Amino acid sequence: MSNVVFSGQEKVQVTQDNEAYGLAARDPSGFLSPFNFTTRENGDNDVTIKILYCGICHTDLHFLKNEHGFSFYPLVPGHEIVGKVVKVGCHVTKFKVGDIAGVGPILGSCGSCSNCTQSLEHYCPKMILTYNGIYHDGSITYGGYSEKMVVEEQFAVLIPKALALDGVAPLLCAGITVYSPMKFYGLDKPGLHLGVVGLGGLGHVAVKFAKAFNMKVTVISTSPAKQTEALERFGADAFLLSNNEQQLQEAMGTMDGIIDTVSAPHSLYPLVDLLTTSGKLILVGAPTSPPELPLIPLLMGRKMISGSGGGGMKEAQEMIDFAAKHGITADVEVIPMDYVNTALERLAKNDVKFRFVIDVANTINSPTS
Amino acid sequence: MSNVVFSGQEKVQVTQDNEAYGLAARDPSGFLSPFNFTTRENGDNDVTIKILYCGICHTDLHFLKNEHGFSFYPLVPGHEIVGKVVKVGCHVTKFKVGDIAGVGPILGSCGSCSNCTQSLEHYCPKMILTYNGIYHDGSITYGGYSEKMVVEEQFAVLIPKALALDGVAPLLCAGITVYSPMKFYGLDKPGLHLGVVGLGGLGHVAVKFAKAFNMKVTVISTSPAKQTEALERFGADAFLLSNNEQQLQEAMGTMDGIIDTVSAPHSLYPLVDLLTTSGKLILVGAPTSPPELPLIPLLMGRKMISGSGGGGMKEAQEMIDFAAKHGITADVEVIPMDYVNTALERLAKNDVKFRFVIDVANTINSPTS
Repeated sequence: MSNVVFSGQEKVQVTQDNEAYGLAARDPSGFLSPFNFTTRENGDNDVTIKILYCGICHTDLHFLKNEHGFSFYPLVPGHEIVGKVVKVGCHVTKFKVGDIAGVGPILGSCGSCSNCTQSLEHYCPKMILTYNGIYHDGSITYGGYSEKMVVEEQFAVLIPKALALDGVAPLLCAGITVYSPMKFYGLDKPGLHLGVVGLGGLGHVAVKFAKAFNMKVTVISTSPAKQTEALERFGADAFLLSNNEQQLQEAMGTMDGIIDTVSAPHSLYPLVDLLTTSGKLILVGAPTSPPELPLIPLLMGRKMISGSGGGGMKEAQEMIDFAAKHGITADVEVIPMDYVNTALERLAKNDVKFRFVIDVANTINSPTS
Repeated sequence: MSNVVFSGQEKVQVTQDNEAYGLAARDPSGFLSPFNFTTRENGDNDVTIKILYCGICHTDLHFLKNEHGFSFYPLVPGHEIVGKVVKVGCHVTKFKVGDIAGVGPILGSCGSCSNCTQSLEHYCPKMILTYNGIYHDGSITYGGYSEKMVVEEQFAVLIPKALALDGVAPLLCAGITVYSPMKFYGLDKPGLHLGVVGLGGLGHVAVKFAKAFNMKVTVISTSPAKQTEALERFGADAFLLSNNEQQLQEAMGTMDGIIDTVSAPHSLYPLVDLLTTSGKLILVGAPTSPPELPLIPLLMGRKMISGSGGGGMKEAQEMIDFAAKHGITADVEVIPMDYVNTALERLAKNDVKFRFVIDVANTINSPTS
């Protein structure tokens, strides 16, 4: 335990335990190369996770290349993490050694603000990012492109063993990012009509959740090639080509809500027109240049536009349990560690179906192992 | 009744009944001059109202000057109407002769669409504006800057006699425009903190409703001169100068909702920053150039921006009844008919406290009377 004074043999053991290996970028080129680091010690409320799979989120690209302007290096990305619990602190109640745990974009928060007390830890002003963050003890947080991590049990979810773990990894970020606003805004009711803009990592999971909620789902995309995937692979009820005026006209005023997962800049006017009166457009992608607010269309139909970023830990557990119940995982392309730089290049061109997931445990090649 | 075949003496009587007088603009100069017109006949479900008071809404200015691009002339403005019922159709149940009725921005809709069946007639695609509209029978609708009008009873509200009628008139548009979104978005709960941007015709009524809901109210304005009025005249709890960085910083993250009544172009970023997590910014003004969507701040706190335009007839009656219960009316400057052109010039410069209301019945000077 971290708060125990070690000596001799034990101390050496702990030091070895804390040594970790991963891939880090050293600068905004974003190129990943081998990196040795030390995890913090496993405290009373912590679990240590041997990482099995880690999804590659588009956010990783932004951070690797410092596109948000607050990256610091070396930077080990990865916040769609599934791993095996190999150590538990003495106060841990949710996990035992051998359990499967998941970690998403945050691994700490203040614990006392109004967000934290409502289980909205992800909106806590002091929330700690899973990577590119500074932990309570001053240590730098390193993400899931690595062999192991230490996390407070409150910031890990228990993964039911029924699910294929490679496909679970993206649920920890992509999954909760679409699930949370669907629940919060009541877009989880049978028979409601949901539009899903973009059929990428987030979009395809949104379609799966919506179908599990027994909603009517229309996939909205600029790419005709997505039609077959939307309808046949994911069971969407309809497909709408967003640059086709006639299709837009026909679908006007029919959607109770829209989950917009697209990060590329785009107009919100056609989307707001697709909404019913009091319809809800939820943005979960983050274009680098903000769009114009379609004010008059909002006024003319009491429509609303919201942003949503992730979900709280309680809801993340609920989401995973819901996914297990309905057999929902992401459709993934599993890759080895040494393919990650290539995968990131392909991701930048949206060349992935539908999420890259790194097979960490089987392909990590630690220089110390 | 309109569906009775008249002859001889009766027909002449009806024709006289239908003659009306008001003020109309003839072109986009917006200048108002005397205008004689004919109302439609009073049908079985209609009431004829002798107009007592009519508020001057900022929308009147837009229409008079064809700023929305769909005005047609002659145009008799006015959609904040209070009058005395002088005739009722045989199927009318809500009114009797002598009652006081109110009419707001619409006086017809399709009656069968999903909006109409939810009492959201104001969002019906076929809703008929109180002026600058075409009625079911093809007649042009003329507004409340006139001596009388015929309206289907469903589109009139019954005004409780306890209220001062000049101050009631603006409730029919300004009042319902702020009341409706406060109710719909749950911004009517004791103890919640509401921001009200702008202390004009809409804003000062929003403050009154919010105080009646026992909310904490902060008035947000660019004008220091509004502080005393906000705090002392209307009982707001706080005043925030929206171009004062320190005041903005201190109030960050404290407001559960904001009603933004300002039509002049302005940034939404400072307003979104004032909201709590999941806070709601409701726009009820319509700037001519739409603002930028503060996307990242929305994402970082699950905040939302909505537009709202008016309210349905059921809710308008509820609003008036609530106003009566709490003694709420607008603070008005009552003017005679022959001052209207001057009042419109002053309104364009926001030189009014807080709403002009025309004393129609006492000052109308019909050439035929």
